[in-house]
Amino acid sequence: MNRRTEPSLERRAIAGISDGGFDSVEKRAAASASSTPATSALADSFNGLPGHVWPRNARRQDDGVVTVAGVPLPEIAETYGTPVFVVDEDDFRSRCRDMAEAFGGGHNVHYASKAFLTRTIARWIDEEGLSLDVASLGELQVALAAGFPASRITVHGNNKTDTLLRASVTAGVGHVVLDCAEEIGRLSAIAVEEGVVQEVLVRVKPGIEAHTHEFIATSHEDQKFGFSLASGSAHAACLAAVDAENLKLVGLHCHVGSQVFDAQGFSLAAERLLGLMGELKRDLDPEDASAAVSILDLGGGYGIAYTEGQDPLDVPEVAATLLREVTTHAESLGLTPPELLVEPGRAIAGPSTVTVYTVGTVKDVHTAQDSTRRYLSVDGGMSDNIRPALYQAEYEGRVVNRFVDGEGISTRVVGSHCESGDILLSDVIYPDDITAGDLLAIAGTGAYCYAMSSRYNMFTRPAVVTVRAGRTRLMLRRETLDDLLSLEDGQF
Amino acid sequence: MNRRTEPSLERRAIAGISDGGFDSVEKRAAASASSTPATSALADSFNGLPGHVWPRNARRQDDGVVTVAGVPLPEIAETYGTPVFVVDEDDFRSRCRDMAEAFGGGHNVHYASKAFLTRTIARWIDEEGLSLDVASLGELQVALAAGFPASRITVHGNNKTDTLLRASVTAGVGHVVLDCAEEIGRLSAIAVEEGVVQEVLVRVKPGIEAHTHEFIATSHEDQKFGFSLASGSAHAACLAAVDAENLKLVGLHCHVGSQVFDAQGFSLAAERLLGLMGELKRDLDPEDASAAVSILDLGGGYGIAYTEGQDPLDVPEVAATLLREVTTHAESLGLTPPELLVEPGRAIAGPSTVTVYTVGTVKDVHTAQDSTRRYLSVDGGMSDNIRPALYQAEYEGRVVNRFVDGEGISTRVVGSHCESGDILLSDVIYPDDITAGDLLAIAGTGAYCYAMSSRYNMFTRPAVVTVRAGRTRLMLRRETLDDLLSLEDGQF
Repeated sequence: MNRRTEPSLERRAIAGISDGGFDSVEKRAAASASSTPATSALADSFNGLPGHVWPRNARRQDDGVVTVAGVPLPEIAETYGTPVFVVDEDDFRSRCRDMAEAFGGGHNVHYASKAFLTRTIARWIDEEGLSLDVASLGELQVALAAGFPASRITVHGNNKTDTLLRASVTAGVGHVVLDCAEEIGRLSAIAVEEGVVQEVLVRVKPGIEAHTHEFIATSHEDQKFGFSLASGSAHAACLAAVDAENLKLVGLHCHVGSQVFDAQGFSLAAERLLGLMGELKRDLDPEDASAAVSILDLGGGYGIAYTEGQDPLDVPEVAATLLREVTTHAESLGLTPPELLVEPGRAIAGPSTVTVYTVGTVKDVHTAQDSTRRYLSVDGGMSDNIRPALYQAEYEGRVVNRFVDGEGISTRVVGSHCESGDILLSDVIYPDDITAGDLLAIAGTGAYCYAMSSRYNMFTRPAVVTVRAGRTRLMLRRETLDDLLSLEDGQF
Repeated sequence: MNRRTEPSLERRAIAGISDGGFDSVEKRAAASASSTPATSALADSFNGLPGHVWPRNARRQDDGVVTVAGVPLPEIAETYGTPVFVVDEDDFRSRCRDMAEAFGGGHNVHYASKAFLTRTIARWIDEEGLSLDVASLGELQVALAAGFPASRITVHGNNKTDTLLRASVTAGVGHVVLDCAEEIGRLSAIAVEEGVVQEVLVRVKPGIEAHTHEFIATSHEDQKFGFSLASGSAHAACLAAVDAENLKLVGLHCHVGSQVFDAQGFSLAAERLLGLMGELKRDLDPEDASAAVSILDLGGGYGIAYTEGQDPLDVPEVAATLLREVTTHAESLGLTPPELLVEPGRAIAGPSTVTVYTVGTVKDVHTAQDSTRRYLSVDGGMSDNIRPALYQAEYEGRVVNRFVDGEGISTRVVGSHCESGDILLSDVIYPDDITAGDLLAIAGTGAYCYAMSSRYNMFTRPAVVTVRAGRTRLMLRRETLDDLLSLEDGQF
């Protein structure tokens, strides 16, 4: 413990260092001394909770504590530990109702299970009168285990096994979405065996790729789902479905993209699918034709705001536009306007939820640009939110246990995984008074976060709690060591 | 079911179509007629199992069936279902021994748990005399639950909680790797409270980023781990660790990258860390100095071959070079050469394992280039292997239930998830006679596949079986619907 020489760096010793590396302890002390006691503009902004990003029932109290549906987030962190997902039930339900209202009723709105599914979620969807999309045997089973009415379930998938098809048919699902040619024969055979006439949609590749603020029209699409419109494959699939025993074609389906902020892609896709419906009307018996053009399912992709700078898609406006356009265009083709179906997942589940983390180590790092970046480590990461690493997704965070009052500093919020790519917020300007023990909530984590969660680094998956009218309820308990070991037999 | 007109596409109807979309049924029929019965060069190559990619005990029998350690993969698929991970135990163990031999003994080789950890794996590592790296409370707990000796465990992490530090100290782990300044004080306090002197390493950012076939030397590193060498922060951390009560600094640690195929990055990092050791020898009491320069831990990153075109890093050669260089350079600095430690994860676990999938739908899709791409769907995907989507990782697949004998066709192997990015092999030339029901194995899936697996789309995670000398053993059972529901309470 003794030292032979007295290095100049010794004064940077550990006493009292609770918030950083050695890189810039002095620099930060200086910055702190020069900052004024008044709240900075950045802090003002950072303490805000923009309504289009945060759950509808999120509020910051006078003491700086953030509540959701009246429940203080620090209280939830205390009770359930962190990281913890907090779902604003009324936010979730209200988005169900908004969608239903915009699209002419809950039966036209199919919640996409893949965004986030539990039995509780399935119950909420049922209670709000929405329908449900599933894309695997597991999603179907969970929905049925929740008592969700099979008649309001639609089954998707590029690789539906016979097991899934049979389970769907015997459960009595509303629709199966046909995705490839050989599936038509397999489903038909199963429907015959089970003595069921199964209603089906045909998934069409309309040659539209919708992106955030634009769309691309291509004549072909190099992806795994559906039948090409341009090649005639979609048309052929429809005829085959009509021909197939015990299948009843009732409409067309397409999906143009994810996180779409502009309605034009949906409009053009609708127009193209209506064109195919016109052909079907020409080519089929009146009775088959009438059934086949009953439903126009435009899939999902309705963009939400993950950060303050993003504008979520205005769903009522888009719905009104689409409904009007579809009616007009259908009538111009001599078609009775089909029912317009949509499949939101993220747009319902996403904004309802925040993930609350505890800030751990705080480290200032010299960057290549000879400036400093602060690394705030939190107690979760890519295991509970893979989207930043997988899709370069951006999010917005807030300290939720108090007001912050610092100057802005270039910051990166990282997780605790043993991987340098484990980054939650890559490059943000955050107040410099965020310290170990603060609670940092990240908004918009209701979709594709828990649903894609892993146990990487043997992290136990977080608890998910729901809040409503001041009450908290555990939806999914936190995993434990026993869960990590539960798949091994006793004689490892 | 009747049709008013007779569309030209009707002849493409469903009868007998078992392997594709409508897009190119005729084209494929024509191709099939013109192919010769002789095996193509592609098929010859495709039926091969390059030894540097496939498990050491993988063989293709005369009947075309692939065995691992004498167990036919179709038999495993039949018994355990697909997808299924198959671990060649002797391959795994032999790579442990190769590493131990190359680096002067198993105690110098720390298996990186994050690559893949179960109690069985921990037992194998123990039996082979290796040490173990953990980077979370969960990894530590699983290792201890397996009876792994704590004294051979090293604890990593950029955000170690007090809970993890205390669990480490009380368990008696060999080393804790210090990652940031404030951690030094916390660990010291805990060690004092527990009455333990904890040996520690200091994680250094050496300013080297090693990539596949090159390295980049930078003066600073913009990442979350460790203390900067260039800024003096690493030096200061070492002095602080020496000063801290109940901590004993015994060496330095660094990690230069992943999937590294060139030893130069390791060499330069070693040289830089030895430079710091020289400074410590100058600045510390002889006793402290002697301890502080005992261990030089160069981390992991030893590249493996995922595809036939890749050459795995020659570990014995690299080890010999590093050991020689470290000895020479240490002596030139007047240092006793430190023990050289390494932390392979992927290089041990990766090549031992294949994932066996069942091929489902086969679909030919017109691409934007007006050519055709075949989409082979398998019954897993990004839930059991996120690496292609996350890192654009490439893999190599083989049909393992028979010889294939087709012409080459541009192919994409996709999973069954409801996401167009769910791709396992993005762009390969595969024989065109692969059909539904074939078993497709993907090699090199032992690291970062199961470890990062999710239940996305409510997929139940695959079984993991080990094979050795003709015997099969279940290591992790397949998840079931009950597992999907187990975290919800009864009153959902």
